[in-house]
Amino acid sequence: MIDREALRAELEATWHRDIPLVTALATTIDSYDGTTLIVRAPLQPNRNLHGTAFAGSLYSVCVLTGWGATWLALREHRLEGSIVVATSSIDFRKAVSSDLVCRCQPDAAALAAALEQLRRDRRARLDLTCTLDQGAARAVTFTGTYAMHAPRH
Amino acid sequence: MIDREALRAELEATWHRDIPLVTALATTIDSYDGTTLIVRAPLQPNRNLHGTAFAGSLYSVCVLTGWGATWLALREHRLEGSIVVATSSIDFRKAVSSDLVCRCQPDAAALAAALEQLRRDRRARLDLTCTLDQGAARAVTFTGTYAMHAPRH
Repeated sequence: MIDREALRAELEATWHRDIPLVTALATTIDSYDGTTLIVRAPLQPNRNLHGTAFAGSLYSVCVLTGWGATWLALREHRLEGSIVVATSSIDFRKAVSSDLVCRCQPDAAALAAALEQLRRDRRARLDLTCTLDQGAARAVTFTGTYAMHAPRH
Repeated sequence: MIDREALRAELEATWHRDIPLVTALATTIDSYDGTTLIVRAPLQPNRNLHGTAFAGSLYSVCVLTGWGATWLALREHRLEGSIVVATSSIDFRKAVSSDLVCRCQPDAAALAAALEQLRRDRRARLDLTCTLDQGAARAVTFTGTYAMHAPRH
């Protein structure tokens, strides 16, 4: 039985302990249901000179959400590994003028294949999409490739 | 005669005044010679859980450097306009384990074409590349498309 509330709290604590910028971003984990991770940051510390969300803040929240979704997936499957983002793109369609709320749900088949590859080869890559909406419209789409490496024992 | 030191100081002040995350990133402008903008941020506030530069910090420094290079180009040509990043990609080839030093030199022909388009159409797009090195090797390559809009009078 996986304690998802404990995982959520551990992920949030890891970010705040090890990545100083997370304190400035003021990110919190809204929810995690076993597949979808939702991360939130308030607008005020993340605004730009137009009064909307700064691109660097939006990217940071996205790259953290993708990293967190990968970290959670490893934990769900009782796997260990370091995770780094290798490459990513981010597309800004609309300005975000409220809380930054980022959602990531790994594709189940892509995740299963990546975890199988990690078990077999001790390294794997996973492509993820993270999104933010403004009202009912898509505002930001992030795609990232995360590299996972099993620990050396 | 353009006072580049005054432009440099005004750009740095604009960032620090209007974008709260810039204070956390601790970015400063290393140099600006009329074509190349170099922006620096210390590693310590920008580290990740591996002790190297956080991807969100690297992206933020890149997107600011590209924005700054565009802002400076407008000022050099006595043009006004708002600038927003529309889309971007960032490729992480090597970890950065020292100061984050980001360089952007707009392509002269692309810049001239974009400024001409801005004068004519009151809106234009400019593609920019920003890079960070680790030692002698390329560590990070960012490409961004910036949209410029002339002010409504």
